[in-house]
Amino acid sequence: MSHNTFGHLFRVTTWGESHGPALGCIVDGCPPGIRFTEAGLQHWMDKRKPGQSRFVTQRREDDLVKILSGVMREDDGGLVTTGTPVSMLIENTDQRSKDYSEIAKRYRPGHADYTYDLKYGVRDYRGGGRSSARETAARVAAGGLARLVVPDVTVRAALVQIGEHRINRDNWDWAEVDSNPFFCPDPETVPVWEEYLDAIRKAGSSVGAVIEVVAENVPAGLGAPIYAKLDQDICSNLMSINAVKGVEIGNGFEAARISGEQNADEMRIGADGKPVFLSNNAGGILGGISTGQPVVARFAVKPTSSILNDRRSIDSDGNEVDVRTKGRHDPCVGIRAVPIGEAMVACALADHYLRDRGQTGRLD
Amino acid sequence: MSHNTFGHLFRVTTWGESHGPALGCIVDGCPPGIRFTEAGLQHWMDKRKPGQSRFVTQRREDDLVKILSGVMREDDGGLVTTGTPVSMLIENTDQRSKDYSEIAKRYRPGHADYTYDLKYGVRDYRGGGRSSARETAARVAAGGLARLVVPDVTVRAALVQIGEHRINRDNWDWAEVDSNPFFCPDPETVPVWEEYLDAIRKAGSSVGAVIEVVAENVPAGLGAPIYAKLDQDICSNLMSINAVKGVEIGNGFEAARISGEQNADEMRIGADGKPVFLSNNAGGILGGISTGQPVVARFAVKPTSSILNDRRSIDSDGNEVDVRTKGRHDPCVGIRAVPIGEAMVACALADHYLRDRGQTGRLD
Amino acid sequence: MSHNTFGHLFRVTTWGESHGPALGCIVDGCPPGIRFTEAGLQHWMDKRKPGQSRFVTQRREDDLVKILSGVMREDDGGLVTTGTPVSMLIENTDQRSKDYSEIAKRYRPGHADYTYDLKYGVRDYRGGGRSSARETAARVAAGGLARLVVPDVTVRAALVQIGEHRINRDNWDWAEVDSNPFFCPDPETVPVWEEYLDAIRKAGSSVGAVIEVVAENVPAGLGAPIYAKLDQDICSNLMSINAVKGVEIGNGFEAARISGEQNADEMRIGADGKPVFLSNNAGGILGGISTGQPVVARFAVKPTSSILNDRRSIDSDGNEVDVRTKGRHDPCVGIRAVPIGEAMVACALADHYLRDRGQTGRLD
Amino acid sequence: MSHNTFGHLFRVTTWGESHGPALGCIVDGCPPGIRFTEAGLQHWMDKRKPGQSRFVTQRREDDLVKILSGVMREDDGGLVTTGTPVSMLIENTDQRSKDYSEIAKRYRPGHADYTYDLKYGVRDYRGGGRSSARETAARVAAGGLARLVVPDVTVRAALVQIGEHRINRDNWDWAEVDSNPFFCPDPETVPVWEEYLDAIRKAGSSVGAVIEVVAENVPAGLGAPIYAKLDQDICSNLMSINAVKGVEIGNGFEAARISGEQNADEMRIGADGKPVFLSNNAGGILGGISTGQPVVARFAVKPTSSILNDRRSIDSDGNEVDVRTKGRHDPCVGIRAVPIGEAMVACALADHYLRDRGQTGRLD
Repeated sequence: MSHNTFGHLFRVTTWGESHGPALGCIVDGCPPGIRFTEAGLQHWMDKRKPGQSRFVTQRREDDLVKILSGVMREDDGGLVTTGTPVSMLIENTDQRSKDYSEIAKRYRPGHADYTYDLKYGVRDYRGGGRSSARETAARVAAGGLARLVVPDVTVRAALVQIGEHRINRDNWDWAEVDSNPFFCPDPETVPVWEEYLDAIRKAGSSVGAVIEVVAENVPAGLGAPIYAKLDQDICSNLMSINAVKGVEIGNGFEAARISGEQNADEMRIGADGKPVFLSNNAGGILGGISTGQPVVARFAVKPTSSILNDRRSIDSDGNEVDVRTKGRHDPCVGIRAVPIGEAMVACALADHYLRDRGQTGRLD
Repeated sequence: MSHNTFGHLFRVTTWGESHGPALGCIVDGCPPGIRFTEAGLQHWMDKRKPGQSRFVTQRREDDLVKILSGVMREDDGGLVTTGTPVSMLIENTDQRSKDYSEIAKRYRPGHADYTYDLKYGVRDYRGGGRSSARETAARVAAGGLARLVVPDVTVRAALVQIGEHRINRDNWDWAEVDSNPFFCPDPETVPVWEEYLDAIRKAGSSVGAVIEVVAENVPAGLGAPIYAKLDQDICSNLMSINAVKGVEIGNGFEAARISGEQNADEMRIGADGKPVFLSNNAGGILGGISTGQPVVARFAVKPTSSILNDRRSIDSDGNEVDVRTKGRHDPCVGIRAVPIGEAMVACALADHYLRDRGQTGRLD
Repeated sequence: MSHNTFGHLFRVTTWGESHGPALGCIVDGCPPGIRFTEAGLQHWMDKRKPGQSRFVTQRREDDLVKILSGVMREDDGGLVTTGTPVSMLIENTDQRSKDYSEIAKRYRPGHADYTYDLKYGVRDYRGGGRSSARETAARVAAGGLARLVVPDVTVRAALVQIGEHRINRDNWDWAEVDSNPFFCPDPETVPVWEEYLDAIRKAGSSVGAVIEVVAENVPAGLGAPIYAKLDQDICSNLMSINAVKGVEIGNGFEAARISGEQNADEMRIGADGKPVFLSNNAGGILGGISTGQPVVARFAVKPTSSILNDRRSIDSDGNEVDVRTKGRHDPCVGIRAVPIGEAMVACALADHYLRDRGQTGRLD
Repeated sequence: MSHNTFGHLFRVTTWGESHGPALGCIVDGCPPGIRFTEAGLQHWMDKRKPGQSRFVTQRREDDLVKILSGVMREDDGGLVTTGTPVSMLIENTDQRSKDYSEIAKRYRPGHADYTYDLKYGVRDYRGGGRSSARETAARVAAGGLARLVVPDVTVRAALVQIGEHRINRDNWDWAEVDSNPFFCPDPETVPVWEEYLDAIRKAGSSVGAVIEVVAENVPAGLGAPIYAKLDQDICSNLMSINAVKGVEIGNGFEAARISGEQNADEMRIGADGKPVFLSNNAGGILGGISTGQPVVARFAVKPTSSILNDRRSIDSDGNEVDVRTKGRHDPCVGIRAVPIGEAMVACALADHYLRDRGQTGRLD
């Protein structure tokens, strides 16, 4: 079960199970001289942590990141990277293993239970073990560092669809995203989702979602033309998130529908003498290489597999059974996927930035 | 510009430009003892090669594959792999470099011209150089071997959408796919596309497409739960194809719209005592690991950037210019992406099969 | 400063500085179903840990390994791997940073101080930071697992030379190795080294050493013919140990001196009908692939750079200075390199075993 | 049998068998804008090619390199890299397969025959197939490009020992190296080796050798402290050469014998205000990172396994047989290993240079 690592020069390796003592990651390749604070890192962790509204799992975890290596404390209390591997550890504090006793041997339809057992012959049924979305806490911590590698870059995401309800893109306001429990950029959609998701939650059901990630101030020239395309690596990173079933860049599947004339992002010379694109259908990437425009990616998250309603399944002894999941779960895992998506895009950008610019950096 | 390689144990490295003497690939990691014929390999090459209908580029290439290493000739005239790297070479015979003189310095909107020049400071404007879809001939050759690595696996693809016109899935018939110039599985859609694409072609325009790849007889248990998910690697491979802007697995973006109950693939025990899935929303992959059901992936190809109509752009001297492309091009590159998609999925499957089963194999 | 990982399928990533709170590693790719105990693992840690005799550094560390993930506790109190990443943590408890104040800005000749500062512009002068031999504790922990991956394999090492004094190979007795502070297999050499090293220690000096690692019950067929030779990977692993300046396989540099007739390991058919080698000049590896004979590697460790006697050097301000090191150090770091060498060879064997046999393994 | 690739950013993949139509390599990651000529590349090929004296194999190969991709022809007839993969092909013209008929089923002691057959179940007995030293022609071609990646670097090697006879280092004169058939830097040793090797050749025997590689003008700061040490990667590259049994850096195994005072390379500030080392025991690398001093590596090559005298062995049917090799062979393969060693060191330097400085480079 190798390959708990991603990235070529900015390499993230994660470890830990849902119900073990802790989980964490090693960020290898982070350049020296990057200044940050634990509070700054925690900001991203808090966006992802469970129990923040009735629309996500009620598991309670502080998700405080302990940094065990790779940094020095400065006089102002801040941290600076030294270029050595940054080991980060997050304790699991609210594991309720008893919740899972009924599904120890039963395969939840749509969940990794069946394939995992089939492949490895052993499975930690408590909260999904290694397949649990707990693992993504480590990604968000790594992403917190990745954001600092590319100078001035910002990576932010929003939820643009829950189940049948899409936002109205004309209302898009980034300032709204952090002021509602859905990371929704459209204030008019918030009450719609609220009512919709309450009904789903009360019915013990779940629903999918689509998340859009936008990275601004991405330097032009990141990526490579063939098998290290920037969009390919962003796509791979996003597809590695639990429950993701689709990814698109720029106008994505819509590009299949339109003409070459409509799809082409025309160019002019701006007032400052620099090239300007008149549109961004490409999502900031042409031929695998960043154009300097915002990088735009979207990904689809399927509905949570753990639901409170019976589904037909089998158990590990080969019996036909009905399965429902009694533990605490997210009616829409897509909500908490928002900061995870940001983190995974940030890691892809950091990796390609280092490939382009090299890994040495001197601490001032 | 490193990273012209993909795969971890079944590793494919491609080389060559659109207008150089040849292009090719090395397939490294192919197990010994695999029997095949040049004719069998050529079958896949022929599916992709240009000039076969008025709907694709009129460039003429035989795309005959020369195998330079890694095989022995057997008494029956067939070939058998020895386990050493298989080097395959395809000559370029029909390069008309003069067609490109007008766009030598002009950036075609939507094309890699601009970013490539920006990054490397040098660009082979003749047919796109390394960014040309010519490179994909090498992928199809590699895919021809990859298909033979996983016993009994079949990988086939079809075009399911051109521009605004989708097939009717109820009419799906694999036998139709090879009997029309679109790899269309729905006979009723063929005349629709024909008329539609003729109009686009005559208008000097282009249009996008969606391709669906289906792999059958995929052993259960391929893939890994976190950063070597089978679906992640399939999507990464598909996103590396020129002009691809979106990928999805199983019901993909549709999964965002539906409920957990609808999305779950329920299971029963079949008459033969083995587990059976009652649906395949997952596209044959759960938690990153194959279930044994058919693996289903789709990808969206944008409209060809090279069109005969003027688009506003700039040139490498910073002048505002209008650009049109006079060379031979595909009105819908999505058509020829069908065999390429098959090849890239086959390579991902071969790679994960070897990770699971190991690389040694004795020649009988 | 990427690349704190080694191995292709059995992947070890280490982290931690000499004077941080802890260090550790992630072992990724360990198959499921491997049974072991913490005591069993600690056996190897104890062989390496400091302060066990007057001939090694007097730093006191218990080097207890905490296993944070990747295992389940069994009813008999033992552990079993689950196939997920095994995260192991070792606390630093006896850091005396004050010892290093004098050399904060001074480059110890022969040490990594100068190049590290030059490259990264920041250096943890306390005990060498990331360049400290403390990092090797994590390797020994990883090696403890690696030993269990290849069935029945044993990997053991001995010191065969300290400074000018080599053992008499005719006296080789593995049983002696653990009964003296030098891991010396020749009882007659022990008092010689004792007297010799006492003098060096009292003089504040240091001396180099040669270690021989022997792996038995290595399955035939591990390795690959060109760039994944088993000997190449063993050599790479051993060269990555601090202070190592040379590696050889089998009769090594001696092979340069002798004839093809002398060097050839002749073969016969044994009484059991199986091939037998009549000698082992090859060190168990031919053409990069294991023969089934014992794998034999040797590596040379330079004398400790930190000595109590003045050497001419410069400081980070460009002043000429004299440098001596007052902290606690090993008069012969080669002694503690014995278990490290074992661990690195065990990791190489585990990696190639998995490449050959695949990574899936079912827990019984 | 994956992994015919080495390097992380400057990646070389080789292919081809001794008796196939051709062999070659892809150099992936070569920066754009590097100017060279075919004649310049051929200079290195000619150093390695067979049949140049009676002391090496009499096989005749021109070893002309055809460059199939990755370059553009300039007005002055020279070539310039474009940053895309450079595919290089070398035809095999003088294969005499009949020479090998007697050893088709017999395992030459000391050769890869036995292990190769054991692992793969198929073996190209004609000249060793993939295990043949023919493969190294591709390395020398790749090395010819690698030399141009690091500005001003020179990499040259010399033979310092044949069998029992070492050179007198006091006589070292680089100018001598290309004026004798042994790449010997000591004119007084040339006649000694001549007589010695003539006797060995006439006796149908063979003998080993030691080669020393020296790289000058290596920028300080290449390498990384833990698992991407520059010396580790140099040694790994050298160990991947056929028949190499030992490698060392700087004073190597001699470092085991001496004291910390003797081994330390003391430093002063030079007349130009820059740091100066007073010796180079370290071989230009401290803590895995280059110091700016010459990088010095040595490697031991075992005697050719193919000899004309009988050795006891077995065949693939399990019979005890005597084996001698009648084909054309090198009495001392170490001679032709000189340019190969240079190439492998050059590749390691190019790879680390790109890791340090990044991969983008604009063509002027």
